[in-house]
Amino acid sequence: MHYTPAPRDPKADPIRINLLSDTQTRPTAAMREAMARAEVGDEQIGDDPTVNQLCERVADLLGKEAAVFMPSGTMCNVAATLAHCRPGDEVLAHASAHIIAREGGAHAALGGFQMTPLPGEDGQFTPETFRAALHPRSRYQPPQTVVSVEQTANIGGGTIWKKAALDEIVEIAKAHGLITHMDGARLLNACVATKISARDMAAGWDSAWIDFSKGLGAPIGGVIAGSRAFVDDVWRWKQRLGGSMRQAGICAAACVYALDHHVDRLADDHANARALARGLSQIKGMEVQEPETNLVFFRPDGAGVAGDRMVNALRKRGVLLATMDGRIRACTHLDVSAAMIEETVGLVREIVRGA
Amino acid sequence: MHYTPAPRDPKADPIRINLLSDTQTRPTAAMREAMARAEVGDEQIGDDPTVNQLCERVADLLGKEAAVFMPSGTMCNVAATLAHCRPGDEVLAHASAHIIAREGGAHAALGGFQMTPLPGEDGQFTPETFRAALHPRSRYQPPQTVVSVEQTANIGGGTIWKKAALDEIVEIAKAHGLITHMDGARLLNACVATKISARDMAAGWDSAWIDFSKGLGAPIGGVIAGSRAFVDDVWRWKQRLGGSMRQAGICAAACVYALDHHVDRLADDHANARALARGLSQIKGMEVQEPETNLVFFRPDGAGVAGDRMVNALRKRGVLLATMDGRIRACTHLDVSAAMIEETVGLVREIVRGA
Amino acid sequence: MHYTPAPRDPKADPIRINLLSDTQTRPTAAMREAMARAEVGDEQIGDDPTVNQLCERVADLLGKEAAVFMPSGTMCNVAATLAHCRPGDEVLAHASAHIIAREGGAHAALGGFQMTPLPGEDGQFTPETFRAALHPRSRYQPPQTVVSVEQTANIGGGTIWKKAALDEIVEIAKAHGLITHMDGARLLNACVATKISARDMAAGWDSAWIDFSKGLGAPIGGVIAGSRAFVDDVWRWKQRLGGSMRQAGICAAACVYALDHHVDRLADDHANARALARGLSQIKGMEVQEPETNLVFFRPDGAGVAGDRMVNALRKRGVLLATMDGRIRACTHLDVSAAMIEETVGLVREIVRGA
Amino acid sequence: MHYTPAPRDPKADPIRINLLSDTQTRPTAAMREAMARAEVGDEQIGDDPTVNQLCERVADLLGKEAAVFMPSGTMCNVAATLAHCRPGDEVLAHASAHIIAREGGAHAALGGFQMTPLPGEDGQFTPETFRAALHPRSRYQPPQTVVSVEQTANIGGGTIWKKAALDEIVEIAKAHGLITHMDGARLLNACVATKISARDMAAGWDSAWIDFSKGLGAPIGGVIAGSRAFVDDVWRWKQRLGGSMRQAGICAAACVYALDHHVDRLADDHANARALARGLSQIKGMEVQEPETNLVFFRPDGAGVAGDRMVNALRKRGVLLATMDGRIRACTHLDVSAAMIEETVGLVREIVRGA
Repeated sequence: MHYTPAPRDPKADPIRINLLSDTQTRPTAAMREAMARAEVGDEQIGDDPTVNQLCERVADLLGKEAAVFMPSGTMCNVAATLAHCRPGDEVLAHASAHIIAREGGAHAALGGFQMTPLPGEDGQFTPETFRAALHPRSRYQPPQTVVSVEQTANIGGGTIWKKAALDEIVEIAKAHGLITHMDGARLLNACVATKISARDMAAGWDSAWIDFSKGLGAPIGGVIAGSRAFVDDVWRWKQRLGGSMRQAGICAAACVYALDHHVDRLADDHANARALARGLSQIKGMEVQEPETNLVFFRPDGAGVAGDRMVNALRKRGVLLATMDGRIRACTHLDVSAAMIEETVGLVREIVRGA
Repeated sequence: MHYTPAPRDPKADPIRINLLSDTQTRPTAAMREAMARAEVGDEQIGDDPTVNQLCERVADLLGKEAAVFMPSGTMCNVAATLAHCRPGDEVLAHASAHIIAREGGAHAALGGFQMTPLPGEDGQFTPETFRAALHPRSRYQPPQTVVSVEQTANIGGGTIWKKAALDEIVEIAKAHGLITHMDGARLLNACVATKISARDMAAGWDSAWIDFSKGLGAPIGGVIAGSRAFVDDVWRWKQRLGGSMRQAGICAAACVYALDHHVDRLADDHANARALARGLSQIKGMEVQEPETNLVFFRPDGAGVAGDRMVNALRKRGVLLATMDGRIRACTHLDVSAAMIEETVGLVREIVRGA
Repeated sequence: MHYTPAPRDPKADPIRINLLSDTQTRPTAAMREAMARAEVGDEQIGDDPTVNQLCERVADLLGKEAAVFMPSGTMCNVAATLAHCRPGDEVLAHASAHIIAREGGAHAALGGFQMTPLPGEDGQFTPETFRAALHPRSRYQPPQTVVSVEQTANIGGGTIWKKAALDEIVEIAKAHGLITHMDGARLLNACVATKISARDMAAGWDSAWIDFSKGLGAPIGGVIAGSRAFVDDVWRWKQRLGGSMRQAGICAAACVYALDHHVDRLADDHANARALARGLSQIKGMEVQEPETNLVFFRPDGAGVAGDRMVNALRKRGVLLATMDGRIRACTHLDVSAAMIEETVGLVREIVRGA
Repeated sequence: MHYTPAPRDPKADPIRINLLSDTQTRPTAAMREAMARAEVGDEQIGDDPTVNQLCERVADLLGKEAAVFMPSGTMCNVAATLAHCRPGDEVLAHASAHIIAREGGAHAALGGFQMTPLPGEDGQFTPETFRAALHPRSRYQPPQTVVSVEQTANIGGGTIWKKAALDEIVEIAKAHGLITHMDGARLLNACVATKISARDMAAGWDSAWIDFSKGLGAPIGGVIAGSRAFVDDVWRWKQRLGGSMRQAGICAAACVYALDHHVDRLADDHANARALARGLSQIKGMEVQEPETNLVFFRPDGAGVAGDRMVNALRKRGVLLATMDGRIRACTHLDVSAAMIEETVGLVREIVRGA
């Protein structure tokens, strides 16, 4: 689960194709224009009309009572567990979930929660695994309070949690008194890929959020939604965490723009990811995980090039990717075109040939 | 120490003069233009050139090795104590300091620190009070780890900590092994008023930060500076707190613009504050605290109008202010002109006459 | 508020009269006999009959539904705030209260609570001071959740909170939704001195505890009482804190013995304290605080001997006391006889004469 | 990993044979006598000679600089991680280790540590598993600070960590800058079984402790040892946790007695466990885990009786055991004789026959 950006000398080797992450998207000219024109106020006292508009739209999109704007997806996750739990409570999630593996121990550090990693293929645990991890109340074990899923499962390969599995997890959780939390960093990728609405995907989940700084292309921000009482509590934690801002409408305007213009086009990213996987899998010896959304994991060892060497060789040719546990991850997004994908496949082929 | 924004029906009573807080400033057209043109990257991996430029400028301004961009001043304070302390450590500050009185108990909640309020006039404790609060190491008392000052002392009336007092506090702190932290939310107001450089004001303080969303007029952001090791540790906490953003250069561009264009003009805010105080003090019975910077505290009871009534009456006339413990606070800033001050004095006079 | 045991070489200067603290009491022969004969079981699973008996007796004594045995009074306080509060909540107590001043920052460290010290004479705050410290709910301030009193106020001079003041504090607390906690380390001293029952003293206080290792003379233990739900929650925290023991009936037997034999005799300690105060106050220049229970604070400076010198000179003569902030504290208890008091007064007189 | 004491009506069904846990041992007459005669003082200020003697003996036994007396083994573990780590640090241990599975989430709740469960047979992870769980330093993952082993592995079946595995884990830990912690609740069982000294077993482990309230038969207490600096820090946390007691020599006397009289006899418990396993495995269909020390895990389903039914049937016949995840655990100790083992086997045989 280690994520290491390749070393780089930006002067010598300019990046032409950035497949590192969909967090790398730069705001488009039209998005910048929307930001520059944004009507703003003090969001901390509820006075920023653009932030308010964004929150209402996301609450509606996810089918929840209310929503809050946050400076990052990590803060959405952190404020959610802080609002849902008391110290010593247990949060269950997949071992590779962002909440366990990629937030620096924040939930334990700031909230005192015992994070229980569940096993499972492709970044997902099964309802059976979840059920088996539940235990009766006892003084000797932490109260099991929250179950969390990450839609899509990033480190699992951008895989999509099936609606049926989500429903079953909700059902088990409710039967055992657990709160359900959906880390929806790339939820809209799952929705676009499956044609299931975000509202349906989030149905039954007490809290859910979407990230605007990934495939949606905004520079900053996530929005978390839930019941009115939950949102009130999240606000208290947002204030403590230092996430309350002032004229945040500047940033929210980019998010509103993204909702209007950048959701449907996620399908292009998925098509590009499939094209990349297809191209790579035609190279002899290359192991490629079939992409479900915008993440492509592949392993070039069988083609005679170790992962690190491949990443470095691509980097010298202006293509940026990352290795994770020996695999290479390529992420398609707003700033990656079909032509770039074609070029990347060609470069990989060239590197393999030269090996 | 209670701060209650006056109730309002923005439709019925549009605000023409917003004296509530310097956090209310809206970005100017030129600042918006700077944001729209900002060169950006992923600040979380150190790739945003505008964020990097801002951090270098603030580190230089404050005479420190390095600096970090944060979504808010509160996160500057919170990440600072998290980096400086271990749970059970004691942080000493004035009872009215933001860190104790206005951050929702964040330092205890997130870090486990015992916050010790020190008494003193005008939001400031004396070096003698600080010295008297120190105790020998013992298992029975928390280790005293950090002393914090807030320059200027907001709730104390925007008062300026004298350079000599700051130096003496640093000296005592160092003699007793304490770390020194300066909440510089309005440090530049103090610098402009005293003509002492920020570098000199922050000299001897292990960590110091400035806020860009107050008098400097940027929509979002604070920057905290200190040693390289401190900044590395703050980065870890910024990640955990959810303060790591992506193309934050959009926001940082406004801060850079503010450094270039909005520092010297803080003197105008101070002149407006003095004009307001002068005008109010000519009203019979009005108690007015002589402003040192951009905050004016006054109490209209002696003039025959209770504080709350005065605030409500002004609100109906389009002027927004807040009460704190029975006093009224008026704050001058970028969006408040000399003419507005004159008008405000006239309206107060009218309300007193009508009482 | 600093408490420094006098330095000592036990070989050279054996202690004959130990006035350091009532925590110094050694179990009597009869108490040891009760311990040796104790019927025991595993208290952690509710199987120790002596612990169960003790808890029932204390719950009854304090008029509460249930009670828990703890290894110390500090754990009673710590588990109580952990059960009552969430991180970021505010606990109000007198600045010199054990919970703020003498527990190493435990409540902030382990629970994340903001501890607000209230001012007041003799270790007590007035109902008015309490009321003035309350503030309306706001995101900017910690939720005020618990008010705590320490009966008697140790560092305040062993002073007794008047029943009327306690009632008024309860009334204010309930009107504002606060939970009430009584640190009853020396509650029974207050009861014996005032002839008010412990049940009456604790009436209206959601949690209350008594310490058995102070004037009651047991080697170990405190018992905290409250509602059944509170006690269930305290049990969970006791387990986490490491306070769950096994055959704790050995220790509980001493506490049961103390309830039977050592409560009424606290009156002797009070008489001895008054005798000590009387004797000391007859020495010219000696400042003596009139004792209400078993603690005598005095300041010998006016008699020509500094506090530290007096403590050291007494220590050489076999009498152990402590200084606190320049004052000397003498504590009477089970192992201190009327003759020892007389001898101590004589020795102080001799030291003053020799100065 | 669930541990459920069988339901019981002690009046109707008195327990004659208590195989529930070695925590059930009652102090012997000679141990009680030692407690009654104990020389005591105030352990909190270092004045209890019996506590001091015990700590010196355990420090010597474990080959460490110093040691501290604690009311429980759980507090030994909790204070150790509190002393070793900062919030957000990661502690690695086997998934079934007491520190993760049986302490109510204490390490997360009180310290803010991310507890990482490692997989492995018989309650033990291999050095390879440990090595594979290590990751490079990154802002996105918690600093990996402590690796902990539980000697013997209770839920793993009372299995003994091999000296070679311990050494290899220490070596890996040191190479990666991790602190090593040994939960030695039943360390002396491992030592007696392997004839390796406790000092050798604990060599290389920065902190280690032994429990006196299990097989050693004392009613209360654990002692944790390490460097002088570690012990100083543990003392600060002991104070905060409420583990500082007063005349704790009463309890420590039982521990000293146990060191003198109850160590070598652990071999008898092991012989009884083997006899029990042998007897049970002669019953057709019974699955029995070969015991390495004093814990016997068996599963009677194959013999035609479900685990819960077996436990209940035995309980009615005066024998107390527990089920864990469908298995039954029997624990031999001071209060269990060879004849009781024989009787138990007979009763199990009878129940199977009656099924």
